[in-house]
Amino acid sequence: MKSDLDTLMQVRNLDALVVLGNAEHNPPMYYFVGGGHVSDAMLVKKRGEAPILFYNDMERGEAAKSGLKTRPFSEFDLAELQKQANGDSLLALAMRFQKILEDFDLTRGRVGIYGQVEFSSAFGMMVKLKSLMPHVEFVGEAGMDSIFLMAMETKDESEVERIRKMGKITTAVVRRVQNLLTNSDVRADEVLLKEDGSPLTIGDVKSKIELWLAELGAENPEGTIFSIGRDAGVPHSTGNPTDFIRLGQTIVFDIFPCERGGGYFYDFTRTWSLGYAMPEAQELYDQVYEIYNQLADNFDLNAPFKDYQRMTCEYFESKGHASSLNTKAPLNGYVHSIGHGVGLNIHERPFSSLTVGDDHRLAPGVIITSEPGLYYPEKGMGIRIEDTIWVRPDGKMEILAEYPYDFVLPMKKWKKKK
Amino acid sequence: MKSDLDTLMQVRNLDALVVLGNAEHNPPMYYFVGGGHVSDAMLVKKRGEAPILFYNDMERGEAAKSGLKTRPFSEFDLAELQKQANGDSLLALAMRFQKILEDFDLTRGRVGIYGQVEFSSAFGMMVKLKSLMPHVEFVGEAGMDSIFLMAMETKDESEVERIRKMGKITTAVVRRVQNLLTNSDVRADEVLLKEDGSPLTIGDVKSKIELWLAELGAENPEGTIFSIGRDAGVPHSTGNPTDFIRLGQTIVFDIFPCERGGGYFYDFTRTWSLGYAMPEAQELYDQVYEIYNQLADNFDLNAPFKDYQRMTCEYFESKGHASSLNTKAPLNGYVHSIGHGVGLNIHERPFSSLTVGDDHRLAPGVIITSEPGLYYPEKGMGIRIEDTIWVRPDGKMEILAEYPYDFVLPMKKWKKKK
Repeated sequence: MKSDLDTLMQVRNLDALVVLGNAEHNPPMYYFVGGGHVSDAMLVKKRGEAPILFYNDMERGEAAKSGLKTRPFSEFDLAELQKQANGDSLLALAMRFQKILEDFDLTRGRVGIYGQVEFSSAFGMMVKLKSLMPHVEFVGEAGMDSIFLMAMETKDESEVERIRKMGKITTAVVRRVQNLLTNSDVRADEVLLKEDGSPLTIGDVKSKIELWLAELGAENPEGTIFSIGRDAGVPHSTGNPTDFIRLGQTIVFDIFPCERGGGYFYDFTRTWSLGYAMPEAQELYDQVYEIYNQLADNFDLNAPFKDYQRMTCEYFESKGHASSLNTKAPLNGYVHSIGHGVGLNIHERPFSSLTVGDDHRLAPGVIITSEPGLYYPEKGMGIRIEDTIWVRPDGKMEILAEYPYDFVLPMKKWKKKK
Repeated sequence: MKSDLDTLMQVRNLDALVVLGNAEHNPPMYYFVGGGHVSDAMLVKKRGEAPILFYNDMERGEAAKSGLKTRPFSEFDLAELQKQANGDSLLALAMRFQKILEDFDLTRGRVGIYGQVEFSSAFGMMVKLKSLMPHVEFVGEAGMDSIFLMAMETKDESEVERIRKMGKITTAVVRRVQNLLTNSDVRADEVLLKEDGSPLTIGDVKSKIELWLAELGAENPEGTIFSIGRDAGVPHSTGNPTDFIRLGQTIVFDIFPCERGGGYFYDFTRTWSLGYAMPEAQELYDQVYEIYNQLADNFDLNAPFKDYQRMTCEYFESKGHASSLNTKAPLNGYVHSIGHGVGLNIHERPFSSLTVGDDHRLAPGVIITSEPGLYYPEKGMGIRIEDTIWVRPDGKMEILAEYPYDFVLPMKKWKKKK
């Protein structure tokens, strides 16, 4: 939680955090500012002190909405610094950065730097700042272990409620998609049709998803996976927009929108087969659903997340599928890890691959996905089931938005010929 | 244009470009890959050679859609490197980076690094890479002058058509918003009402904007400015969602969506006063419209963009307004610059502030905004008019999406009492 930051800073011997960039679509800045049109800002937080947001004058109103202590960049005369730097604008920005740090008495010690930014100019500026301030160590942290991902790993109740609300929006859209599909007419060759009689494409479905997400107040910055057949067998294939939708094919529908303005995400997957299922696909589905339920029964408070990755690998291997337990980077079988944290990042701590540490745990307040899957692209099929789960402080695991686990969806206007 | 990159690399003595990050919402990566769900990728382009995209195995299908030469990261055993690095994951990533560069015979020389990424881990990795490869100079470039913004500054015809299409979507949404407003009922106190009789809020209008943009296939990652009265007087204030919409107030409506998936932007502003206008607001509007037209008549092929900033400052100062010509960072009057380039970045070269160089020109193929404005927050008013304009190779300036310049919008169901 945010209140852990000072302790984490002490443990890591960081005297200050500096976050660069916009307030939107920039998790560490959003964590403090709460979104809004604050661009190219800088936030400085000394250990044990409240953060201060530096903003551009034109955005003073937006900066004020953050509720943070704010200061305008115009306190520092960038045009004058630019002159002193002989027109070297990266040097001028580094000089302004130096003046800001000096203002906080940060002339030595360790300063962590964060933020979603264009790397080139930020890197160029930091190289110059390092020469200007040789007694300050500027610290970059590995994504998975950064102090922000550590703090963000556990959620407070208001964060849980925001993610829960995104879950309700997500499943409402999934319900509409399910209705759209099952109410469609079907051509003799088992292709779904739109009302105008032309084939329903993946692109059509995705357009509806975007429309419905917008209507319900969500944003979809990372797109949606809606992939059929062979594409469903490649976990991150998003689906080919011109492909038709056919009965009896596995459809992997993985949807992960966030609050408008770049806030909290939800992550959800169902796999459907319309009208009927190929026996082999049904068998795969049953196995995925079986381990999904075994996991749900076995999640224990504070257990290492990767224990469940191992459990899933062992289960799938016992059924004859490859997994990362005994195969390096498999492309068939169980090819990813069992889940990840969800918050301001769609993927955040805790992680669950076999290589991560035991500190990635089902700690109280963590929000994770559970998403077993099986993939056989050459057979034209893939299966994944995914829910977002809150590890409650009382030790219960709560799915934040319930949705049925039907695999075969009966078509309202189509019946299988006997 | 993209074909300029090799020449630019030669001029800057860069042996290679490396782009990090996702394909979406990452202009330099999008420039090559064209979007799609390719995440945490790396693109390497040696001078004079075609770029190569390194991707994560799960996204092989998405990577292939780029049409680029691709290679999977799994060619390099990150788990083994992690072991060699004693679990230091930034060092392991730096070692993989080193192996990739060595594969391209890049063991000395100058390598530019780009991409929209989380700074902390990328910076931490680069610090380690610099020690691993002391003979390579890793170059960060100032945003405004980066080789990508230089190349992107001029657009080819396919880029122009994409931006034009975004202009059509943008103005279609503006038309719908205009109709929504002018068809509204009006309460006795001049507040607009929704069909259910409750006041129409800025939040309501923004929800409609999001819905209509989604319906027409656009994305709106940076939000919309729809601000009234005092907020309209602060250029980047986005408007307060709970505020009511009233007659006779200046409404600054600045909308800047992009293609779905993080592609090309459009940028457009109109200022409206519903039903009637305050005389002082009308006077300001007339002045802004006058200089808007003077600029349109005076834009010359290859002229420095900032010449038009000077012309605008001089015009407004002659009318008694402050501007950056003689006031440092004014908060009243004409408080920003006259325009900027538009493309994969909402703000890109050429820029027009008085401090930029003459190389920011109206070169053939450039796409710019022209957006004069006047701001008086304490008087509760602000005015801006903005179009996106293509500087055609034949020297004509073409507005990419036409829209009327009415200031006072008559209300269909309301008449001013005599």
